[in-house]
Amino acid sequence: MRVVVEMSILVVGTVAFDSIEAPSGSVDRVLGGSASYFAVGASFFHPVQIVGVIGEDFPREHLDMFASRGIDLAGLQKEKGPTFYWRGRYHEDVNVRDTLELQLNVLTGFRPRLPESYRNAEYVFLGNIDPEMQSEVLDQLRGSRYLACDTMDHWIQGNRPGLEKVLARVETLVINDSEARLLSGENNIVRAARGILKMGPKVILIKRGEYGVLEFSDSSVFATPAYPLEEVFDPTGAGDSFAGGFMGQLARSRDHSQRGLRRAIIYGSVVASFAVEDFGLKRLDRLTPEEIESRFRQFLDLTDFHT
Amino acid sequence: MRVVVEMSILVVGTVAFDSIEAPSGSVDRVLGGSASYFAVGASFFHPVQIVGVIGEDFPREHLDMFASRGIDLAGLQKEKGPTFYWRGRYHEDVNVRDTLELQLNVLTGFRPRLPESYRNAEYVFLGNIDPEMQSEVLDQLRGSRYLACDTMDHWIQGNRPGLEKVLARVETLVINDSEARLLSGENNIVRAARGILKMGPKVILIKRGEYGVLEFSDSSVFATPAYPLEEVFDPTGAGDSFAGGFMGQLARSRDHSQRGLRRAIIYGSVVASFAVEDFGLKRLDRLTPEEIESRFRQFLDLTDFHT
Repeated sequence: MRVVVEMSILVVGTVAFDSIEAPSGSVDRVLGGSASYFAVGASFFHPVQIVGVIGEDFPREHLDMFASRGIDLAGLQKEKGPTFYWRGRYHEDVNVRDTLELQLNVLTGFRPRLPESYRNAEYVFLGNIDPEMQSEVLDQLRGSRYLACDTMDHWIQGNRPGLEKVLARVETLVINDSEARLLSGENNIVRAARGILKMGPKVILIKRGEYGVLEFSDSSVFATPAYPLEEVFDPTGAGDSFAGGFMGQLARSRDHSQRGLRRAIIYGSVVASFAVEDFGLKRLDRLTPEEIESRFRQFLDLTDFHT
Repeated sequence: MRVVVEMSILVVGTVAFDSIEAPSGSVDRVLGGSASYFAVGASFFHPVQIVGVIGEDFPREHLDMFASRGIDLAGLQKEKGPTFYWRGRYHEDVNVRDTLELQLNVLTGFRPRLPESYRNAEYVFLGNIDPEMQSEVLDQLRGSRYLACDTMDHWIQGNRPGLEKVLARVETLVINDSEARLLSGENNIVRAARGILKMGPKVILIKRGEYGVLEFSDSSVFATPAYPLEEVFDPTGAGDSFAGGFMGQLARSRDHSQRGLRRAIIYGSVVASFAVEDFGLKRLDRLTPEEIESRFRQFLDLTDFHT
């Protein structure tokens, strides 16, 4: 008999093969995608359900890895054809990357279908996919939930009306700084956030890579630096790992107060800081809850100037 | 009878006329220079003594402004010829600027001479000038002091031996992130700081503009975001204002512990955040101690995730 987890975190996003070149080395066709990073990052805190699509070439070992982390794969659809594929190269300055190849493959025409057991998910993260798919997920949900979404320049420029509909329905937008500027038409990041708050979300989380995260709401501004690392092996998935840690901690604590949000932002930053320490999902795969708590305490020491 | 302030903060650096074009407007030949910004920033916390050079064209009103803030001008030498002049333009993204014109004028051949009343200064900041001049200031000092210095790409590339001699003699280096990378030859900012720590300074403060400040020592890492501003009118002098607030608070508190350093970094960040709110020194000129303390408390709220 299957146990239905009513209070799970649902994520919709990509499951991908990534080929990555970076100054520290390169890897070929490793597991990637926004839903993968999010799900693994969140799984340290709370049960997760994935909605996404994979191709016929998707190996059993990746499914086993997800399952071993308690990630529910009932919503992971398998379609004819190859899995979504991304190939990219990071510069000497790893904040800059070029996309060398992008094959949508089974993502073309993907329509998310939520299994019955997913429809009561209380925490929902709409990863960076077509806003139409994000809306289709929202349409299939029941009851009150904490909804967050991500997006990217491609959708801001290519499907703004669709994106605006999603923004009007979510509690929180997680977005990087250049995309926040693009979405709002404001160069200054504070004004950019204020502009986006008018589009619907109550909370805007602006990811600034190695510079950390800014949180804006109508009544509060919070800023945290990123954890300073001696080596960033592979920044791929840092933003989705952040979102996973953030939503995971929110779901674990059920504390949506400003204090709860801030602590969740730090947990997200902790998970992201580990994610970039090795290629693909390697570091998260060997990460322990103790390491997460230890680095959370290090964040306190890193940023504290009152005591 | 003149009262000699034994425990003053001494700064050597440029006193300049700046012409600035920015997206928010432009100004012509306003008071600028590293020593000017530092001195005004520090004057909210502690008495300051300036070492520098001005030309015959330097107007009385600027001297009166310094004097009205209790800034000692006995070490400000007046030479034949025009004052140092800089003209620059900020891009729509105000993190990027071009130097359009640079006239060294009286700065050419400047040899700093410390008045007797300056030689016991306890806190000394060597602003961004030729390392040879920085060394000449150190040579004229007596007794034990808290020494800090700034530098820039021009000296890192043009007089590295001279700069290394200065670095071996100072407690603290205040430097921006791209210069830290250049000085260390390391792209990663943590490794860059570790490399510079081996050159002499016990503390490295890395300025990251709108992204805040990192502090590295052998035993501690501290990171703070910058205060998020809705409008940055003119970033000129932000780094020197930061250094002024930092050294000013150190001198006021006489607390050189890690806690004291961290609080001084926040005070520096507070002063810098005000400096960029108007052109040139305009905002600092009308700033009040109450505003500084109020924004310091806002920094606590901005960054706090424990309470």
